[in-house]
Amino acid sequence: VLTLEYDGTDYAGSQFQGDTRTIQGALEAAWTKLTGEQVRWNFAGRTDAGVHARGQVANTRTATRHALATIQRALNALLPRDVAVLAAQDVPWDFHARYSAWRRDYRYLILNEAWPSPLERERMLHVPEALDVDGMAHAVEALVGEHDFATFGVVDRGTTVRHCYHAACNAVWKDGRQTIEIELSANGFLRHMVRSVVGTLLQVGRGRLGASDMATILASHDRSSAGPTAPPHGLYLERVWYEGQPAAGSR
Amino acid sequence: VLTLEYDGTDYAGSQFQGDTRTIQGALEAAWTKLTGEQVRWNFAGRTDAGVHARGQVANTRTATRHALATIQRALNALLPRDVAVLAAQDVPWDFHARYSAWRRDYRYLILNEAWPSPLERERMLHVPEALDVDGMAHAVEALVGEHDFATFGVVDRGTTVRHCYHAACNAVWKDGRQTIEIELSANGFLRHMVRSVVGTLLQVGRGRLGASDMATILASHDRSSAGPTAPPHGLYLERVWYEGQPAAGSR
Repeated sequence: VLTLEYDGTDYAGSQFQGDTRTIQGALEAAWTKLTGEQVRWNFAGRTDAGVHARGQVANTRTATRHALATIQRALNALLPRDVAVLAAQDVPWDFHARYSAWRRDYRYLILNEAWPSPLERERMLHVPEALDVDGMAHAVEALVGEHDFATFGVVDRGTTVRHCYHAACNAVWKDGRQTIEIELSANGFLRHMVRSVVGTLLQVGRGRLGASDMATILASHDRSSAGPTAPPHGLYLERVWYEGQPAAGSR
Repeated sequence: VLTLEYDGTDYAGSQFQGDTRTIQGALEAAWTKLTGEQVRWNFAGRTDAGVHARGQVANTRTATRHALATIQRALNALLPRDVAVLAAQDVPWDFHARYSAWRRDYRYLILNEAWPSPLERERMLHVPEALDVDGMAHAVEALVGEHDFATFGVVDRGTTVRHCYHAACNAVWKDGRQTIEIELSANGFLRHMVRSVVGTLLQVGRGRLGASDMATILASHDRSSAGPTAPPHGLYLERVWYEGQPAAGSR
Protein backbone atom coordinates (compact mmCIF):
# COMPACT_ATOMS: atom_id res chain seq x y z
CA VAL A 1 0.00 0.00 0.00
CA LEU A 2 1.28 3.46 -0.95
CA THR A 3 0.67 6.87 0.59
CA LEU A 4 0.57 9.49 -2.17
CA GLU A 5 0.88 13.26 -2.30
CA TYR A 6 -0.16 15.04 -5.46
CA ASP A 7 -0.79 18.42 -6.96
CA GLY A 8 -4.12 17.84 -8.70
CA THR A 9 -3.95 21.01 -10.83
CA ASP A 10 -3.04 19.31 -14.09
CA TYR A 11 -5.11 16.13 -13.60
CA ALA A 12 -8.66 15.21 -14.56
CA GLY A 13 -8.98 13.61 -11.10
CA SER A 14 -7.71 10.50 -9.35
CA GLN A 15 -9.78 7.91 -11.20
CA PHE A 16 -8.56 6.21 -14.39
CA GLN A 17 -10.20 7.60 -17.58
CA GLY A 18 -8.42 6.08 -20.58
CA ASP A 19 -5.98 8.51 -22.19
CA THR A 20 -6.90 11.44 -19.92
CA ARG A 21 -4.23 12.48 -17.42
CA THR A 22 -5.27 10.96 -14.07
CA ILE A 23 -3.44 10.05 -10.87
CA GLN A 24 -4.44 6.40 -11.21
CA GLY A 25 -3.31 6.39 -14.84
CA ALA A 26 0.07 7.88 -13.88
CA LEU A 27 0.58 5.39 -11.06
CA GLU A 28 -0.43 2.38 -13.14
CA ALA A 29 1.85 3.44 -16.01
CA ALA A 30 4.80 3.83 -13.62
CA TRP A 31 3.98 0.48 -12.01
CA THR A 32 3.92 -1.29 -15.38
CA LYS A 33 7.32 0.20 -16.26
CA LEU A 34 8.76 -0.97 -12.96
CA THR A 35 7.25 -4.46 -12.70
CA GLY A 36 5.78 -5.32 -16.09
CA GLU A 37 2.48 -5.98 -14.30
CA GLN A 38 -0.70 -4.50 -15.78
CA VAL A 39 -2.91 -4.28 -12.72
CA ARG A 40 -5.60 -2.01 -11.31
CA TRP A 41 -4.73 0.05 -8.24
CA ASN A 42 -7.46 0.67 -5.63
CA PHE A 43 -7.68 4.24 -4.33
CA ALA A 44 -9.03 5.14 -0.86
CA GLY A 45 -10.90 8.21 -2.08
CA ARG A 46 -11.91 9.53 -5.46
CA THR A 47 -10.65 13.10 -5.90
CA ASP A 48 -12.06 15.36 -8.63
CA ALA A 49 -10.10 17.31 -11.24
CA GLY A 50 -7.96 19.95 -9.54
CA VAL A 51 -8.27 18.46 -6.04
CA HIS A 52 -4.99 17.79 -4.19
CA ALA A 53 -3.91 15.04 -1.82
CA ARG A 54 -1.36 14.93 0.96
CA GLY A 55 -2.35 11.45 2.09
CA GLN A 56 -4.17 9.51 -0.63
CA VAL A 57 -3.79 5.75 -0.17
CA ALA A 58 -3.62 3.20 -2.98
CA ASN A 59 -3.03 -0.55 -3.03
CA THR A 60 -2.82 -3.46 -5.45
CA ARG A 61 -1.96 -7.15 -5.37
CA THR A 62 1.41 -7.88 -6.84
CA ALA A 63 3.84 -10.70 -7.48
CA THR A 64 6.84 -8.39 -7.63
CA ARG A 65 9.87 -9.35 -5.56
CA HIS A 66 11.31 -5.82 -5.35
CA ALA A 67 11.89 -4.59 -1.80
CA LEU A 68 9.52 -1.87 -0.53
CA ALA A 69 12.33 0.71 -0.43
CA THR A 70 13.24 -0.09 -4.04
CA ILE A 71 9.60 0.22 -5.12
CA GLN A 72 9.22 3.62 -3.46
CA ARG A 73 12.49 4.98 -4.89
CA ALA A 74 11.76 3.66 -8.38
CA LEU A 75 8.17 4.94 -8.47
CA ASN A 76 9.29 8.39 -7.34
CA ALA A 77 11.81 8.39 -10.20
CA LEU A 78 9.22 7.18 -12.75
CA LEU A 79 6.23 9.32 -11.67
CA PRO A 80 5.77 12.91 -12.90
CA ARG A 81 6.96 15.60 -10.46
CA ASP A 82 3.41 16.44 -9.38
CA VAL A 83 2.89 12.97 -7.81
CA ALA A 84 5.07 11.37 -5.12
CA VAL A 85 5.03 8.24 -2.98
CA LEU A 86 5.50 9.36 0.64
CA ALA A 87 5.35 5.88 2.17
CA ALA A 88 5.17 2.22 1.10
CA GLN A 89 4.06 -0.64 3.36
CA ASP A 90 3.10 -4.30 3.11
CA VAL A 91 -0.48 -5.12 4.10
CA PRO A 92 -2.54 -8.33 4.47
CA TRP A 93 -3.82 -9.92 1.26
CA ASP A 94 -7.44 -8.88 1.97
CA PHE A 95 -6.60 -5.18 2.46
CA HIS A 96 -8.46 -2.81 0.12
CA ALA A 97 -7.55 0.91 0.12
CA ARG A 98 -11.19 1.90 -0.33
CA TYR A 99 -13.19 -0.76 1.51
CA SER A 100 -10.82 -1.19 4.48
CA ALA A 101 -10.71 2.56 5.26
CA TRP A 102 -12.83 3.60 8.22
CA ARG A 103 -12.19 7.33 8.13
CA ARG A 104 -11.10 10.01 5.63
CA ASP A 105 -9.88 13.51 6.54
CA TYR A 106 -10.36 16.38 4.10
CA ARG A 107 -9.21 19.99 4.44
CA TYR A 108 -10.28 23.06 2.48
CA LEU A 109 -8.15 26.21 2.46
CA ILE A 110 -9.47 29.75 1.90
CA LEU A 111 -7.31 32.86 1.54
CA ASN A 112 -9.40 35.62 3.07
CA GLU A 113 -7.45 38.70 1.98
CA ALA A 114 -8.42 41.70 -0.15
CA TRP A 115 -6.09 40.69 -2.99
CA PRO A 116 -5.24 37.30 -4.49
CA SER A 117 -1.94 35.55 -3.78
CA PRO A 118 -0.11 34.45 -6.95
CA LEU A 119 1.94 31.98 -4.90
CA GLU A 120 -1.19 30.28 -3.53
CA ARG A 121 -3.39 30.65 -6.61
CA GLU A 122 -3.66 26.88 -7.14
CA ARG A 123 -3.58 25.98 -3.43
CA MET A 124 -6.34 28.06 -1.81
CA LEU A 125 -9.68 29.59 -2.76
CA HIS A 126 -9.38 33.38 -2.71
CA VAL A 127 -12.33 35.15 -1.06
CA PRO A 128 -11.86 38.93 -0.81
CA GLU A 129 -14.92 39.77 1.33
CA ALA A 130 -14.65 39.63 5.12
CA LEU A 131 -16.23 36.38 6.32
CA ASP A 132 -18.02 35.62 9.57
CA VAL A 133 -15.71 32.78 10.61
CA ASP A 134 -17.41 32.34 13.99
CA GLY A 135 -20.71 31.80 12.22
CA MET A 136 -19.08 29.30 9.82
CA ALA A 137 -17.48 27.45 12.74
CA HIS A 138 -20.83 27.25 14.50
CA ALA A 139 -22.63 26.14 11.33
CA VAL A 140 -20.24 23.32 10.45
CA GLU A 141 -20.73 21.67 13.85
CA ALA A 142 -24.25 20.67 12.76
CA LEU A 143 -22.66 18.07 10.48
CA VAL A 144 -21.05 16.01 13.25
CA GLY A 145 -22.73 12.64 13.84
CA GLU A 146 -24.60 10.20 11.62
CA HIS A 147 -26.75 11.95 9.02
CA ASP A 148 -28.24 11.52 5.57
CA PHE A 149 -25.99 13.92 3.62
CA ALA A 150 -28.12 13.90 0.41
CA THR A 151 -28.20 17.72 0.56
CA PHE A 152 -24.47 17.89 -0.07
CA GLY A 153 -23.73 15.27 -2.69
CA VAL A 154 -24.62 12.28 -4.78
CA VAL A 155 -23.69 8.62 -4.87
CA ASP A 156 -23.59 6.24 -7.82
CA ARG A 157 -25.55 3.73 -5.75
CA GLY A 158 -26.38 2.92 -2.13
CA THR A 159 -27.08 5.04 0.91
CA THR A 160 -26.33 8.74 1.38
CA VAL A 161 -25.98 8.23 5.15
CA ARG A 162 -22.49 8.94 6.46
CA HIS A 163 -20.95 9.34 9.89
CA CYS A 164 -19.09 12.63 10.32
CA TYR A 165 -16.51 12.34 13.12
CA HIS A 166 -15.07 15.83 13.04
CA ALA A 167 -16.07 19.17 11.49
CA ALA A 168 -14.25 22.44 12.18
CA CYS A 169 -13.66 25.86 10.68
CA ASN A 170 -10.79 27.99 11.96
CA ALA A 171 -9.19 31.30 11.11
CA VAL A 172 -5.43 30.79 10.89
CA TRP A 173 -2.84 33.53 10.53
CA LYS A 174 -0.42 32.01 8.01
CA ASP A 175 2.71 33.79 6.71
CA GLY A 176 1.12 37.13 7.62
CA ARG A 177 -2.16 36.36 5.88
CA GLN A 178 -5.68 35.60 7.04
CA THR A 179 -6.54 32.06 6.00
CA ILE A 180 -9.50 29.86 6.87
CA GLU A 181 -9.16 26.11 7.25
CA ILE A 182 -12.22 23.88 7.06
CA GLU A 183 -11.73 20.29 8.25
CA LEU A 184 -14.15 17.43 7.67
CA SER A 185 -13.63 13.82 8.73
CA ALA A 186 -16.12 11.05 8.06
CA ASN A 187 -16.33 7.34 7.36
CA GLY A 188 -17.05 8.25 3.76
CA PHE A 189 -18.00 11.17 1.52
CA LEU A 190 -20.52 11.60 -1.26
CA ARG A 191 -19.32 13.07 -4.56
CA HIS A 192 -18.72 16.84 -4.24
CA MET A 193 -19.71 16.66 -0.55
CA VAL A 194 -16.83 18.69 0.93
CA ARG A 195 -17.00 21.36 -1.76
CA SER A 196 -20.79 21.58 -1.40
CA VAL A 197 -20.46 21.98 2.39
CA VAL A 198 -17.80 24.67 1.85
CA GLY A 199 -20.03 26.50 -0.63
CA THR A 200 -22.84 26.48 1.95
CA LEU A 201 -20.49 27.65 4.72
CA LEU A 202 -19.43 30.54 2.48
CA GLN A 203 -23.10 31.60 2.32
CA VAL A 204 -23.06 31.66 6.13
CA GLY A 205 -19.75 33.55 6.13
CA ARG A 206 -21.24 36.18 3.82
CA GLY A 207 -24.36 36.52 5.97
CA ARG A 208 -26.72 35.13 3.35
CA LEU A 209 -27.54 32.22 5.64
CA GLY A 210 -27.61 32.09 9.43
CA ALA A 211 -25.32 29.69 11.28
CA SER A 212 -28.35 27.82 12.60
CA ASP A 213 -29.72 27.29 9.05
CA MET A 214 -27.14 24.53 8.51
CA ALA A 215 -29.14 21.94 10.47
CA THR A 216 -32.28 22.73 8.46
CA ILE A 217 -30.42 22.53 5.15
CA LEU A 218 -28.84 19.21 6.17
CA ALA A 219 -32.24 17.83 7.17
CA SER A 220 -33.90 18.95 3.91
CA HIS A 221 -32.03 16.27 1.88
CA ASP A 222 -32.54 18.71 -0.98
CA ARG A 223 -29.48 19.23 -3.21
CA SER A 224 -30.78 22.66 -4.30
CA SER A 225 -30.77 24.02 -0.75
CA ALA A 226 -26.95 23.73 -0.55
CA GLY A 227 -24.71 26.61 -1.60
CA PRO A 228 -22.85 26.47 -4.92
CA THR A 229 -20.09 23.84 -5.04
CA ALA A 230 -16.78 25.50 -4.10
CA PRO A 231 -13.94 25.22 -6.64
CA PRO A 232 -11.58 22.22 -6.40
CA HIS A 233 -8.19 23.93 -5.95
CA GLY A 234 -8.67 24.63 -2.21
CA LEU A 235 -9.41 20.97 -1.38
CA TYR A 236 -6.97 18.37 0.00
CA LEU A 237 -7.42 14.71 0.88
CA GLU A 238 -5.27 14.82 4.01
CA ARG A 239 -5.34 11.33 5.49
CA VAL A 240 -7.06 7.97 5.36
CA TRP A 241 -7.39 5.80 8.46
CA TYR A 242 -7.31 1.98 8.67
CA GLU A 243 -8.02 -0.30 11.58
CA GLY A 244 -4.85 -1.42 13.34
CA GLN A 245 -2.83 0.76 10.96
CA PRO A 246 -2.59 4.19 12.50
CA ALA A 247 0.54 4.75 10.44
CA ALA A 248 -1.18 4.68 7.05
CA GLY A 249 -1.40 8.20 5.68
CA SER A 250 0.82 9.66 8.37
CA ARG A 251 4.50 10.46 8.28
CA VAL B 1 4.58 52.83 -5.54
CA LEU B 2 3.30 49.25 -5.75
CA THR B 3 3.93 46.22 -3.55
CA LEU B 4 4.02 43.09 -5.70
CA GLU B 5 3.71 39.39 -5.05
CA TYR B 6 4.71 36.99 -7.77
CA ASP B 7 5.34 33.35 -8.55
CA GLY B 8 8.65 33.57 -10.41
CA THR B 9 8.47 30.03 -11.83
CA ASP B 10 7.54 31.03 -15.37
CA TYR B 11 9.59 34.24 -15.57
CA ALA B 12 13.13 34.95 -16.73
CA GLY B 13 13.50 37.22 -13.68
CA SER B 14 12.24 40.61 -12.60
CA GLN B 15 14.27 42.78 -14.97
CA PHE B 16 13.02 43.77 -18.44
CA GLN B 17 14.62 41.76 -21.28
CA GLY B 18 12.82 42.62 -24.50
CA ASP B 19 10.38 39.91 -25.55
CA THR B 20 11.32 37.53 -22.74
CA ARG B 21 8.68 37.02 -20.05
CA THR B 22 9.75 39.18 -17.10
CA ILE B 23 7.94 40.75 -14.14
CA GLN B 24 8.94 44.25 -15.24
CA GLY B 25 7.75 43.51 -18.77
CA ALA B 26 4.39 42.25 -17.49
CA LEU B 27 3.91 45.29 -15.23
CA GLU B 28 4.91 47.79 -17.91
CA ALA B 29 2.59 46.16 -20.48
CA ALA B 30 -0.34 46.27 -18.02
CA TRP B 31 0.51 49.89 -17.16
CA THR B 32 0.52 50.92 -20.82
CA LYS B 33 -2.87 49.27 -21.34
CA LEU B 34 -4.28 51.12 -18.34
CA THR B 35 -2.78 54.58 -18.83
CA GLY B 36 -1.35 54.73 -22.35
CA GLU B 37 1.98 55.72 -20.75
CA GLN B 38 5.13 53.97 -21.93
CA VAL B 39 7.38 54.38 -18.90
CA ARG B 40 10.07 52.44 -17.07
CA TRP B 41 9.24 51.08 -13.64
CA ASN B 42 11.98 51.02 -10.98
CA PHE B 43 12.23 47.79 -8.98
CA ALA B 44 13.61 47.63 -5.41
CA GLY B 45 15.48 44.38 -5.98
CA ARG B 46 16.44 42.37 -9.03
CA THR B 47 15.19 38.79 -8.72
CA ASP B 48 16.57 36.02 -10.92
CA ALA B 49 14.61 33.58 -13.06
CA GLY B 50 12.49 31.33 -10.83
CA VAL B 51 12.83 33.51 -7.71
CA HIS B 52 9.56 34.55 -6.02
CA ALA B 53 8.49 37.74 -4.25
CA ARG B 54 5.97 38.41 -1.53
CA GLY B 55 6.97 42.05 -1.15
CA GLN B 56 8.75 43.39 -4.23
CA VAL B 57 8.38 47.17 -4.56
CA ALA B 58 8.18 49.10 -7.83
CA ASN B 59 7.59 52.75 -8.65
CA THR B 60 7.34 55.08 -11.62
CA ARG B 61 6.49 58.72 -12.30
CA THR B 62 3.09 59.13 -13.84
CA ALA B 63 0.65 61.77 -15.02
CA THR B 64 -2.33 59.46 -14.67
CA ARG B 65 -5.34 60.84 -12.82
CA HIS B 66 -6.75 57.43 -11.88
CA ALA B 67 -7.32 56.95 -8.16
CA LEU B 68 -4.94 54.56 -6.38
CA ALA B 69 -7.74 52.08 -5.71
CA THR B 70 -8.68 52.10 -9.40
CA ILE B 71 -5.06 51.56 -10.43
CA GLN B 72 -4.68 48.58 -8.10
CA ARG B 73 -7.94 46.97 -9.18
CA ALA B 74 -7.25 47.54 -12.87
CA LEU B 75 -3.65 46.26 -12.73
CA ASN B 76 -4.77 43.12 -10.91
CA ALA B 77 -7.31 42.54 -13.67
CA LEU B 78 -4.73 43.19 -16.43
CA LEU B 79 -1.74 41.31 -14.96
CA PRO B 80 -1.30 37.54 -15.44
CA ARG B 81 -2.46 35.41 -12.50
CA ASP B 82 1.10 34.81 -11.28
CA VAL B 83 1.63 38.52 -10.47
CA ALA B 84 -0.51 40.64 -8.14
CA VAL B 85 -0.46 44.16 -6.70
CA LEU B 86 -0.90 43.82 -2.92
CA ALA B 87 -0.74 47.54 -2.17
CA ALA B 88 -0.58 50.90 -3.97
CA GLN B 89 0.56 54.15 -2.35
CA ASP B 90 1.50 57.69 -3.34
CA VAL B 91 5.09 58.70 -2.60
CA PRO B 92 7.16 61.91 -2.91
CA TRP B 93 8.42 62.78 -6.40
CA ASP B 94 12.05 61.92 -5.51
CA PHE B 95 11.19 58.41 -4.27
CA HIS B 96 13.04 55.60 -6.07
CA ALA B 97 12.13 51.98 -5.31
CA ARG B 98 15.75 50.91 -5.58
CA TYR B 99 17.78 53.88 -4.35
CA SER B 100 15.44 54.91 -1.51
CA ALA B 101 15.35 51.42 0.02
CA TRP B 102 17.48 50.99 3.13
CA ARG B 103 16.85 47.32 3.81
CA ARG B 104 15.74 44.18 1.93
CA ASP B 105 14.54 40.96 3.54
CA TYR B 106 14.99 37.64 1.77
CA ARG B 107 13.87 34.20 2.85
CA TYR B 108 14.91 30.78 1.56
CA LEU B 109 12.79 27.67 2.20
CA ILE B 110 14.10 24.12 2.37
CA LEU B 111 11.95 21.00 2.68
CA ASN B 112 14.07 18.60 4.73
CA GLU B 113 12.13 15.37 4.32
CA ALA B 114 13.07 12.00 2.85
CA TRP B 115 10.70 12.39 -0.12
CA PRO B 116 9.82 15.40 -2.27
CA SER B 117 6.54 17.27 -1.91
CA PRO B 118 4.67 17.67 -5.22
CA LEU B 119 2.63 20.52 -3.70
CA GLU B 120 5.79 22.46 -2.76
CA ARG B 121 7.96 21.48 -5.72
CA GLU B 122 8.22 25.07 -7.01
CA ARG B 123 8.16 26.69 -3.56
CA MET B 124 10.94 24.98 -1.57
CA LEU B 125 14.28 23.30 -2.22
CA HIS B 126 13.98 19.60 -1.38
CA VAL B 127 16.96 18.21 0.56
CA PRO B 128 16.49 14.57 1.59
CA GLU B 129 19.58 14.17 3.81
CA ALA B 130 19.35 15.09 7.50
CA LEU B 131 20.94 18.52 7.98
CA ASP B 132 22.76 19.94 11.00
CA VAL B 133 20.44 22.94 11.45
CA ASP B 134 22.18 24.06 14.66
CA GLY B 135 25.46 24.23 12.76
CA MET B 136 23.81 26.17 9.93
CA ALA B 137 22.23 28.60 12.42
CA HIS B 138 25.61 29.14 14.08
CA ALA B 139 27.38 29.60 10.73
CA VAL B 140 24.96 32.16 9.31
CA GLU B 141 25.48 34.47 12.29
CA ALA B 142 28.98 35.24 10.97
CA LEU B 143 27.36 37.30 8.22
CA VAL B 144 25.77 39.89 10.53
CA GLY B 145 27.46 43.30 10.39
CA GLU B 146 29.30 45.23 7.69
CA HIS B 147 31.44 42.98 5.50
CA ASP B 148 32.89 42.70 2.03
CA PHE B 149 30.62 39.96 0.63
CA ALA B 150 32.70 39.33 -2.55
CA THR B 151 32.81 35.61 -1.61
CA PHE B 152 29.08 35.31 -2.15
CA GLY B 153 28.31 37.33 -5.26
CA VAL B 154 29.18 39.82 -7.92
CA VAL B 155 28.25 43.40 -8.77
CA ASP B 156 28.12 45.11 -12.14
CA ARG B 157 30.07 48.01 -10.66
CA GLY B 158 30.92 49.53 -7.27
CA THR B 159 31.67 48.07 -3.88
CA THR B 160 30.93 44.56 -2.64
CA VAL B 161 30.62 45.83 0.94
CA ARG B 162 27.14 45.41 2.41
CA HIS B 163 25.63 45.72 5.88
CA CYS B 164 23.78 42.59 7.00
CA TYR B 165 21.23 43.46 9.69
CA HIS B 166 19.80 40.03 10.35
CA ALA B 167 20.78 36.44 9.52
CA ALA B 168 18.99 33.39 10.88
CA CYS B 169 18.40 29.72 10.13
CA ASN B 170 15.55 27.90 11.85
CA ALA B 171 13.93 24.48 11.70
CA VAL B 172 10.18 24.94 11.43
CA TRP B 173 7.58 22.18 11.68
CA LYS B 174 5.12 23.15 8.93
CA ASP B 175 1.98 21.15 8.04
CA GLY B 176 3.60 18.07 9.61
CA ARG B 177 6.86 18.47 7.71
CA GLN B 178 10.39 19.43 8.64
CA THR B 179 11.24 22.69 6.88
CA ILE B 180 14.21 25.02 7.25
CA GLU B 181 13.86 28.77 6.86
CA ILE B 182 16.90 30.92 6.17
CA GLU B 183 16.42 34.68 6.61
CA LEU B 184 18.83 37.36 5.43
CA SER B 185 18.31 41.12 5.73
CA ALA B 186 20.80 43.69 4.46
CA ASN B 187 20.98 47.18 3.01
CA GLY B 188 21.68 45.52 -0.33
CA PHE B 189 22.59 42.21 -1.91
CA LEU B 190 25.10 41.21 -4.58
CA ARG B 191 23.86 39.11 -7.49
CA HIS B 192 23.29 35.48 -6.38
CA MET B 193 24.29 36.41 -2.82
CA VAL B 194 21.45 34.74 -0.93
CA ARG B 195 21.60 31.57 -3.01
CA SER B 196 25.37 31.44 -2.65
CA VAL B 197 25.08 31.81 1.14
CA VAL B 198 22.43 29.07 1.20
CA GLY B 199 24.66 26.78 -0.88
CA THR B 200 27.48 27.32 1.62
CA LEU B 201 25.15 26.74 4.58
CA LEU B 202 24.08 23.45 3.00
CA GLN B 203 27.75 22.39 3.03
CA VAL B 204 27.74 23.11 6.76
CA GLY B 205 24.44 21.27 7.19
CA ARG B 206 25.91 18.21 5.45
CA GLY B 207 29.05 18.32 7.60
CA ARG B 208 31.40 19.14 4.71
CA LEU B 209 32.23 22.46 6.36
CA GLY B 210 32.34 23.36 10.04
CA ALA B 211 30.07 26.10 11.38
CA SER B 212 33.12 28.20 12.24
CA ASP B 213 34.43 27.99 8.66
CA MET B 214 31.84 30.56 7.60
CA ALA B 215 33.85 33.52 8.95
CA THR B 216 36.98 32.33 7.12
CA ILE B 217 35.09 31.85 3.86
CA LEU B 218 33.52 35.31 4.18
CA ALA B 219 36.94 36.87 4.84
CA SER B 220 38.55 35.08 1.87
CA HIS B 221 36.67 37.29 -0.65
CA ASP B 222 37.13 34.30 -2.95
CA ARG B 223 34.07 33.34 -4.99
CA SER B 224 35.35 29.77 -5.36
CA SER B 225 35.38 29.17 -1.61
CA ALA B 226 31.57 29.50 -1.44
CA GLY B 227 29.33 26.46 -1.86
CA PRO B 228 27.42 25.91 -5.10
CA THR B 229 24.66 28.46 -5.72
CA ALA B 230 21.36 27.02 -4.44
CA PRO B 231 18.50 26.78 -6.95
CA PRO B 232 16.13 29.77 -7.32
CA HIS B 233 12.77 28.18 -6.49
CA GLY B 234 13.27 28.27 -2.70
CA LEU B 235 14.01 32.02 -2.65
CA TYR B 236 11.58 34.85 -1.81
CA LEU B 237 12.04 38.62 -1.70
CA GLU B 238 9.91 39.16 1.40
CA ARG B 239 9.99 42.86 2.12
CA VAL B 240 11.71 46.15 1.28
CA TRP B 241 12.06 48.89 3.87
CA TYR B 242 11.98 52.68 3.27
CA GLU B 243 12.70 55.52 5.65
CA GLY B 244 9.54 56.96 7.15
CA GLN B 245 7.53 54.37 5.27
CA PRO B 246 7.28 51.32 7.48
CA ALA B 247 4.15 50.34 5.56
CA ALA B 248 5.87 49.69 2.23
CA GLY B 249 6.15 45.97 1.68
CA SER B 250 3.88 45.14 4.59
CA ARG B 251 0.18 44.44 4.66
